Amino acid sequence: MNSTRDQIIATTCDLLESQGYHATGLNQIVKESGSPKGSLYYHFPGGKEELALAAVTHVGNMVLQRIRENLALIENPAEAITAFIKNVAFHVEMSDFRAGGPITTIAMETASTSPTLRGECQRIYSGWQAVFADKLNAAGLPQARAERMAVMIIAALEGGVILCRTGQSRAPLEQVADEIGEMVKHAMSFGSAL
Amino acid sequence: MNSTRDQIIATTCDLLESQGYHATGLNQIVKESGSPKGSLYYHFPGGKEELALAAVTHVGNMVLQRIRENLALIENPAEAITAFIKNVAFHVEMSDFRAGGPITTIAMETASTSPTLRGECQRIYSGWQAVFADKLNAAGLPQARAERMAVMIIAALEGGVILCRTGQSRAPLEQVADEIGEMVKHAMSFGSAL
Repeated sequence: MNSTRDQIIATTCDLLESQGYHATGLNQIVKESGSPKGSLYYHFPGGKEELALAAVTHVGNMVLQRIRENLALIENPAEAITAFIKNVAFHVEMSDFRAGGPITTIAMETASTSPTLRGECQRIYSGWQAVFADKLNAAGLPQARAERMAVMIIAALEGGVILCRTGQSRAPLEQVADEIGEMVKHAMSFGSAL
Repeated sequence: MNSTRDQIIATTCDLLESQGYHATGLNQIVKESGSPKGSLYYHFPGGKEELALAAVTHVGNMVLQRIRENLALIENPAEAITAFIKNVAFHVEMSDFRAGGPITTIAMETASTSPTLRGECQRIYSGWQAVFADKLNAAGLPQARAERMAVMIIAALEGGVILCRTGQSRAPLEQVADEIGEMVKHAMSFGSAL
């Protein structure tokens, strides 16, 4: 990657996160990234969908890395997952409720209209889930239950971000973090019961 | 309400649910509702934002009613809530993954751009949460814990719909339903521990 391409992708990620796919026009990306219009078409000849795909992949991988690093910091899975969700809550508040859930809006907007973007969002969600499932499984939770709980965690995270951004408060994600902590603690004590 | 206004609102609800706010144009609403363009401006002189507000209010109240009726059918809260979420999963699948989460996309799209729509989405989410909190509280869960768990349930429902529509499968919401059922059952046995 060269720096113009990087800059275009970074700007696109920010705009998709704060306002979604349909509200984001190529002209706004050109303007806010400070790149000449020609270089956008040079790097992304497929236009908006190709650029959005690159942005979703980029931010999806960044979040994957952040989940991995955060969950590795604390051995106990209930504490590690609670702390991660509270970090997300803090991040949403710090952005003045413009960030958080970087692929949430585009995932819903394009689920029925772009198989390419839908498929990539699905791949990203599965990747994030796998990291949580591995953390739970490594601590002794049977694989099937760990996978089910990981789906629940990603669902609650995505929905929690929506409630925070809609309510202009970090409280919903903090409440989700505490409930998820309780849920994981309980499941680890009775892990074999599916 | 007269029937032209009702038809315009119903069409708008469907389009907002399947494709979101920014992808939905007034021309498409006129065309799909079969109403003359003049009557759209007659009933909604404020244009798209006013119409979207009426649609969000309408579908929000419909879902509120559905939650109330569904939760009243089964006395045990864990079973009632699990059954409700599984019904949503079935509904999402039946729509070929075009429906479910009627205000999710518009909530995220407009959270930073329309205080009016953001405020209405917040009011709707709070109303839904209150029904779940009442159900849990009536069965003996202390009010504060019941409210926290209701936030968790709405978050997991919203996020679960995103995972179903993105993954073209009802499995994520079914997994969420089972985990929420476990969570509620556990909380009811140890209800006093916040």
